[in-house]
Amino acid sequence: MNPDLHKIISSILPHTQPRKQAGQAYAPANIALCKYWGKRQESLKLPLTGSLSISLAQLGTHMRIELSETDQLIINDEAQDIRGKAATRLFEFLSLFRAPDTHFKIKSLNTIPMAAGLASSASAFASAVNALNDLYQWELSAQQRSILARIGSGSASRSIYQGFVEWHRGEQADGMDSFAERLDTEWPDFRIGILTLSDAKKTVGSSEGMQRTIESSTLFESWPAQVDKDLPVIRQAIRDQDFDTLGKTAEQNALSMHATMISAWPPVLYWRPESVATLHQVHQLRQQGLSVYATMDAGPNVKLLFKEKTRNELLQAFPGLQVVEPFSA
Amino acid sequence: MNPDLHKIISSILPHTQPRKQAGQAYAPANIALCKYWGKRQESLKLPLTGSLSISLAQLGTHMRIELSETDQLIINDEAQDIRGKAATRLFEFLSLFRAPDTHFKIKSLNTIPMAAGLASSASAFASAVNALNDLYQWELSAQQRSILARIGSGSASRSIYQGFVEWHRGEQADGMDSFAERLDTEWPDFRIGILTLSDAKKTVGSSEGMQRTIESSTLFESWPAQVDKDLPVIRQAIRDQDFDTLGKTAEQNALSMHATMISAWPPVLYWRPESVATLHQVHQLRQQGLSVYATMDAGPNVKLLFKEKTRNELLQAFPGLQVVEPFSA
Repeated sequence: MNPDLHKIISSILPHTQPRKQAGQAYAPANIALCKYWGKRQESLKLPLTGSLSISLAQLGTHMRIELSETDQLIINDEAQDIRGKAATRLFEFLSLFRAPDTHFKIKSLNTIPMAAGLASSASAFASAVNALNDLYQWELSAQQRSILARIGSGSASRSIYQGFVEWHRGEQADGMDSFAERLDTEWPDFRIGILTLSDAKKTVGSSEGMQRTIESSTLFESWPAQVDKDLPVIRQAIRDQDFDTLGKTAEQNALSMHATMISAWPPVLYWRPESVATLHQVHQLRQQGLSVYATMDAGPNVKLLFKEKTRNELLQAFPGLQVVEPFSA
Repeated sequence: MNPDLHKIISSILPHTQPRKQAGQAYAPANIALCKYWGKRQESLKLPLTGSLSISLAQLGTHMRIELSETDQLIINDEAQDIRGKAATRLFEFLSLFRAPDTHFKIKSLNTIPMAAGLASSASAFASAVNALNDLYQWELSAQQRSILARIGSGSASRSIYQGFVEWHRGEQADGMDSFAERLDTEWPDFRIGILTLSDAKKTVGSSEGMQRTIESSTLFESWPAQVDKDLPVIRQAIRDQDFDTLGKTAEQNALSMHATMISAWPPVLYWRPESVATLHQVHQLRQQGLSVYATMDAGPNVKLLFKEKTRNELLQAFPGLQVVEPFSA
């Protein structure tokens, strides 16, 4: 255990006495338009670069944390092995916040289609911090909750908010300036399309893929320059509601992240044949004049970025498309 | 026309009077193990980095250049449109070497499976230089012919030789130190496997793909560092006959080249679904203990690197595999 971690967390928490029997909260999943790929510090999950995402409205995690005699974890009504990988990671995180004799029964409900390869860890750790905030009645600011969620899972720092969210890289060693903030822009006709291409289990986890890329990809050395170029363009395109600039920058950013993985050794090849077929289909639709862009995370699935007026044409091209409306309340 | 080009060529040629009625020659195709990707100078085809290839023995181009009243081009027994793209490029090149009133009837026979996406331009330009050398009886050294072939098509500089061939980047502005040389190593049980995955016509030519990558890919900035790392490792692995070091370095080099294209805008995505399926199959075979590696050029097809003892297992896994023995006379 990093002693800094305890110091940092206790500097944020007003106390460690639960004020209720149970706390509950919700946090959305998010999809990065400018990706988080690479940490500069491991235990505090301090990122190498900033990143910018869009939250997925009602697709996310509802979490209820109840005081209990023993630790228990129930995900989507299924009791989990408490010594399993997911439970261990979550309880190690929660133990940073609770007194040694405190135990939790946790019920988590994911509204994200798991097979779509959407990271549930972001909404899980963000909802956990929000639920603790309720249970302990800490009344933490969103910025403080973002820092705490980040310690659980980097991209969870962004799942504290809905809408467009920027996670600042920060400079400080203690990470107190590495938090996310919501961008002050609504974009009512902005849409995200989720395609479930492959439910093949990932052979390489995203943290492992990230680590292998950093250690073995020469091209990764140019990745921070890619983000330095893309992040301000995406931020400005959101302000200007310039959809094509946003779309092409986000697509190039996502494909460049995959390019760093493809150039690692052994290659981190999340792409499946269907991923490539979908990318070609998106490029073809664009050549036909449709304004649609692709993004991908550390997995085989492709997500589409488009506007409401393109919805019907895309549903025809991709019958299984699940459409998310990030700005409809 | 670059005036330097004429000066450079006439400094190499002893004369421009044909000494025979026809000249003929052969040159093999080649597959780069460390790729040529990016030029530092366009008209002289001076490369950004060195590269290293293996020539494909009897797979290549036979060319006969005959004095004639008019320019004609016959490829694989089919007369070509003299104003077509391929003919224009070849005759523009040949015009650098002949007197203004000289015309050629050219018969070219390719033994490379065209659908396999193997570059025929390397063997075409190398065999053209060799055939001119015969027609004019210049008695040029291999090094001089390599420089001349390079001016036609960069990778043609390597097709002057059989076996393992290194093309030196060079430093001079006139390119007189940018030629290929044969490595002094035979490797009798080294094999190349050619898979014809897709005969879909490339939507982006390789020169255009190269140009777009240089102009728009941020990750390409790290490509020269990739070559600086890989080229000496591959050279030494050939000397040591260390197959796995050669294979993994060549595969990472090829995938990194594709990674630079994938990160370009618009993305240069030569990969088809079958390309990715084949890469996964190669990775799986490797996990089963088979020593096999993949390489790819600016197209969708995958080439395999392996040793004779693995041939039968690979023919089972890839029934359409065409096996090349680069060192059997």
